[in-house]
Amino acid sequence: MNAIHTNPERLERFLTEIAAFGATANGGVTRLALSDEDRDARDRLREWFEEAGCETRIDRMGNMFFIRPGRNRALAPVMTGSHCDSQPQGGRFDGILGIIGGLEAVCALNDAGVTLERDLIVVNWTNEEGSRFTPGTTGSGVFAGKLDREAMYGLTDRDGLTFGAELERIGYKGGDDFDPRPLHANFEYHIEQGPVLERRGKTIGVPKGIVCLRWYDVEIQGVPNHAGPTPMDERQDAIYAFSRMAGRVFDIGLASDGVVATVGEVHPSPNSRNVIAGHVHFTIDIRGWDETETDRVCEEIEAAIRANAEATGCTVEIRQTWAVERAPFHPELVSLIHEVAGELDLPALDMVSGASHDTVYINQFAPSAMIFVPSIGGRSHAEVEETSWADCAAGADVLLNCILKTANDPESVTYAAPE
Amino acid sequence: MNAIHTNPERLERFLTEIAAFGATANGGVTRLALSDEDRDARDRLREWFEEAGCETRIDRMGNMFFIRPGRNRALAPVMTGSHCDSQPQGGRFDGILGIIGGLEAVCALNDAGVTLERDLIVVNWTNEEGSRFTPGTTGSGVFAGKLDREAMYGLTDRDGLTFGAELERIGYKGGDDFDPRPLHANFEYHIEQGPVLERRGKTIGVPKGIVCLRWYDVEIQGVPNHAGPTPMDERQDAIYAFSRMAGRVFDIGLASDGVVATVGEVHPSPNSRNVIAGHVHFTIDIRGWDETETDRVCEEIEAAIRANAEATGCTVEIRQTWAVERAPFHPELVSLIHEVAGELDLPALDMVSGASHDTVYINQFAPSAMIFVPSIGGRSHAEVEETSWADCAAGADVLLNCILKTANDPESVTYAAPE
Repeated sequence: MNAIHTNPERLERFLTEIAAFGATANGGVTRLALSDEDRDARDRLREWFEEAGCETRIDRMGNMFFIRPGRNRALAPVMTGSHCDSQPQGGRFDGILGIIGGLEAVCALNDAGVTLERDLIVVNWTNEEGSRFTPGTTGSGVFAGKLDREAMYGLTDRDGLTFGAELERIGYKGGDDFDPRPLHANFEYHIEQGPVLERRGKTIGVPKGIVCLRWYDVEIQGVPNHAGPTPMDERQDAIYAFSRMAGRVFDIGLASDGVVATVGEVHPSPNSRNVIAGHVHFTIDIRGWDETETDRVCEEIEAAIRANAEATGCTVEIRQTWAVERAPFHPELVSLIHEVAGELDLPALDMVSGASHDTVYINQFAPSAMIFVPSIGGRSHAEVEETSWADCAAGADVLLNCILKTANDPESVTYAAPE
Repeated sequence: MNAIHTNPERLERFLTEIAAFGATANGGVTRLALSDEDRDARDRLREWFEEAGCETRIDRMGNMFFIRPGRNRALAPVMTGSHCDSQPQGGRFDGILGIIGGLEAVCALNDAGVTLERDLIVVNWTNEEGSRFTPGTTGSGVFAGKLDREAMYGLTDRDGLTFGAELERIGYKGGDDFDPRPLHANFEYHIEQGPVLERRGKTIGVPKGIVCLRWYDVEIQGVPNHAGPTPMDERQDAIYAFSRMAGRVFDIGLASDGVVATVGEVHPSPNSRNVIAGHVHFTIDIRGWDETETDRVCEEIEAAIRANAEATGCTVEIRQTWAVERAPFHPELVSLIHEVAGELDLPALDMVSGASHDTVYINQFAPSAMIFVPSIGGRSHAEVEETSWADCAAGADVLLNCILKTANDPESVTYAAPE
């Protein structure tokens, strides 16, 4: 079968229109999960998918499933999609591109008069970002049976509002447990959120999986004291101890084999100009494709933190608060994406995903893979997040043709179960 | 004249009773300027001083002057005193010891039946700490003509309440501009707030003056980005830049000739666990006795900050927001304190004051000096702040006998004008 193409003008129009929901003055989007802006975007998505002939199902977590019926509805369906919530002052592409890409695939299939063998389901997963209600990827996590629905209903935002009440308020607490499993294949189309594709001059990123993750919380205890009368050699300055530790975290990451290490939060106390800090709480986020190398980096960082606590006369408590194994995608689907990109003459790059996605959960029970397009300047989770319209269309073309192939797989074809 | 002594039991009782105003559960004091607790402590001080035969004058800044009349009231008076406000969760000695020391001196003079030649004035300066209304030392600053009274009335706390309205509310906005100048001599008795006396085994600290001070505000601009997909060698991580800079600030201070350098405040943005920081604002407090060495340290620190901004791909803005010259005390009064400590068999140490005090302002127009006693563990501006009762009494004895000598100086004796 020859490749078919999406309509770049329509894709751009969809993306531009949906970016109005929660638009910020600086060209970004604030569309927090279960906010009015989230509701309005959901309403519009539903209109568009239903105009394109899809059925809508909404489950108890507010996950929205838009179904384009196939010829043989008894076959396992193909799924694609992502999320329409955003970070506060986030970008116009993160998440929503994967849903609009699916919508445009549906429209392009309609334009071409193609009826697929299998159902195609485009999904909007609830609360991927986790900015308002932590943790994120709650919709896909509950769908995968890895998070407890009632516990997620009980999550509260900073104003004390609960996930469950807000889901109901915006009218997206569905009444039934829609379950299309088993899935034949699952694709998530997303912006890269890093600089690798742009730097390497490639249009399509084909991640072999999502990196593993380790989170740490570190508490440094020093001795608070007046900044004037305390000689330098009698200080137990928690900010100084922190500065040595944070420097080592970065340097160890830099020297590693592909592991990244980030100190993202620092909370000193009393945080007063003329007082030596008595306490610092900080966080570390460590990720890598190679679990062994990642654990080696973790050990080296833990040792460096302890050594620097000792050298500065402080005490330290290191807690690893979260550890997620890497998620390798389905090799046949990864190969398929390469093959399709080749047919479309789009330069593609083998890579890994440094960010987590809803597909981490779906990948646990269904053959899955992801399609990336370049983020200009590597920027994401920021209003300046940008991807060219041409790259948006290129990624949508890859998604469309991956769907075309897999959703026409006969009943006899199955992808081997995930490792 | 032979030395006379204070009454240690009475001194302890005064200090214990006054510590009840704003007492915290952990043995400290929260007695912010112009709070109800400040008012209650002021009321009690006034009762005690008036019971001891003093006249009370209150000026428009709420500074309280307790006057023990001398034989010849036309002579320039001797002044002593400090402040009764505290840091939030501060200690029971910082400031108040200097007022209670003066009160005990008055009582001891009464006990001994001594009438001094000159008036003795014990003062409670309003808002030394500056915790609630910034800047601090406002009462002494206005008295010295260095701060503008109306501007100080306009200072607001975090709840938007003004200094002027709060001063009036607690009933301490006096109606007249009491001005006892010229002063013959001024002594401030205070805890050391550092570890030097304890470490050196001395009871009385005799600072030759107060160190000079430089304050900086530094803004680091990096590039915020997702902590997962951004390779280590493509980061412009403002927290990493900060960590290198803060490490250098400490190390440069440590290697200097007696200069101390403190990073007390750090404000990263967005301060999120999985986002590379795009911005950090931090402060530096630099102090030293030697102005030349202090300025050399400032230059070395500024250069190190710029070098580390460049090395980490960040940009930096360095602003020196405050610079105060050192305040040398009056050499004859410094010698007098040593002489009195010797007569009392109290081991004394030449030192400098790393902390600022109301006497910085008084020293600008009147011969001044300070008397320090040890801070246990060097701790201050904290609830654990502690000084032994014996040391409190020793310092009060030194103060009493310095007063006894200077307040009996005949009209012909004057201390040379400050340099």
